[in-house]
Amino acid sequence: MKIYEMKIAPNPRRVRIFMAEKGLLDQAEFVELDLQKGENLTPEFAEKNPMKKVPVLELDDGTCISETMAICRYFEELHPQPALLGRDPLEKAQVEQWLRWIEFYFFMPTGMCFQHTSGYFDDRMKCIPEWGEECRKGVEKFFHLLNKHLEGREYIVGDGFSAADINALCTIDFNKVNRVGIKEDQVHLKAWYDRISQRESIRA
Amino acid sequence: MKIYEMKIAPNPRRVRIFMAEKGLLDQAEFVELDLQKGENLTPEFAEKNPMKKVPVLELDDGTCISETMAICRYFEELHPQPALLGRDPLEKAQVEQWLRWIEFYFFMPTGMCFQHTSGYFDDRMKCIPEWGEECRKGVEKFFHLLNKHLEGREYIVGDGFSAADINALCTIDFNKVNRVGIKEDQVHLKAWYDRISQRESIRA
Repeated sequence: MKIYEMKIAPNPRRVRIFMAEKGLLDQAEFVELDLQKGENLTPEFAEKNPMKKVPVLELDDGTCISETMAICRYFEELHPQPALLGRDPLEKAQVEQWLRWIEFYFFMPTGMCFQHTSGYFDDRMKCIPEWGEECRKGVEKFFHLLNKHLEGREYIVGDGFSAADINALCTIDFNKVNRVGIKEDQVHLKAWYDRISQRESIRA
Repeated sequence: MKIYEMKIAPNPRRVRIFMAEKGLLDQAEFVELDLQKGENLTPEFAEKNPMKKVPVLELDDGTCISETMAICRYFEELHPQPALLGRDPLEKAQVEQWLRWIEFYFFMPTGMCFQHTSGYFDDRMKCIPEWGEECRKGVEKFFHLLNKHLEGREYIVGDGFSAADINALCTIDFNKVNRVGIKEDQVHLKAWYDRISQRESIRA
């Protein structure tokens, strides 16, 4: 199988860390695309993913799966151990809840802040800097919420490492482009970040 | 168990249809909140869901699960039949892919178009009408994409009804607030919509 990605982009990184945790990294051939050059905007790539985003997993029979969490779900179903999307119905629901909170209130505003304020994609979208700044406020609020949540906790959900930890960490790192980071007084978030960063998978 | 909701809001509707398909509607007590009056903004409700959104599922031991798809995931794990989130690893990934496309490129811009152009929530957020109009364009594009995808298909994913059908239908209906609907020439989307609308669950 192949995975189309851009190595420095945050969504492909989420997939690679997920795969590394399951020991699957060597199962796929990684194909690098240059998004700024628009290598994801060709008709050939739109055949693989009509949304023209990376990552895309292409199976050996040509079937394509888009969307980070859909690719992760596929690997979780085929290789359930170690469980990264929860171990029982309640934990699966709690992981899903946190994945969505991280996605909607943290990752998406992070991306939109970048898109609407940096000018990186201003050749292909309408940038509304005022909206980008609203998103930045949402991002800062989520850093605060995560710090509060992590007081007395080792992981975001329950007592085990999960995709919620992967996605939160990747979003924090992604925020370098917005020059937003963990504040000095966010000690619980900082301790969690330092602990999670030591996992070998994080360098995937 | 209890479900906190507002009956006319689209996310609670997604959960009710999902539960109806599994025959679970009578298992929960539904507690109605008035969002415009801010009944979701109280400290008591923030204890249940720090994001202050509905729906929230409260289990008998007081554990709360927020987020539509997390609640659906919980019911799917406890009551796997009929499967609404896919039947095998590939189909589960495909349902997840479509759920995310529908959420990111259809439901979210629908909600943001409403929030930023209607004035309904202008007492509690900064409205940027220009952003709302960008979102409207995204919504219209997705109507077009769905119509194309549904040519020759009975359901959005594979050969069975899934949560992807529920979420797309609820998003189309939600678009009444934006005065966006299925166009005359979107015949595949129209045929699918009419077919799905006949299911008893849709009136839940």
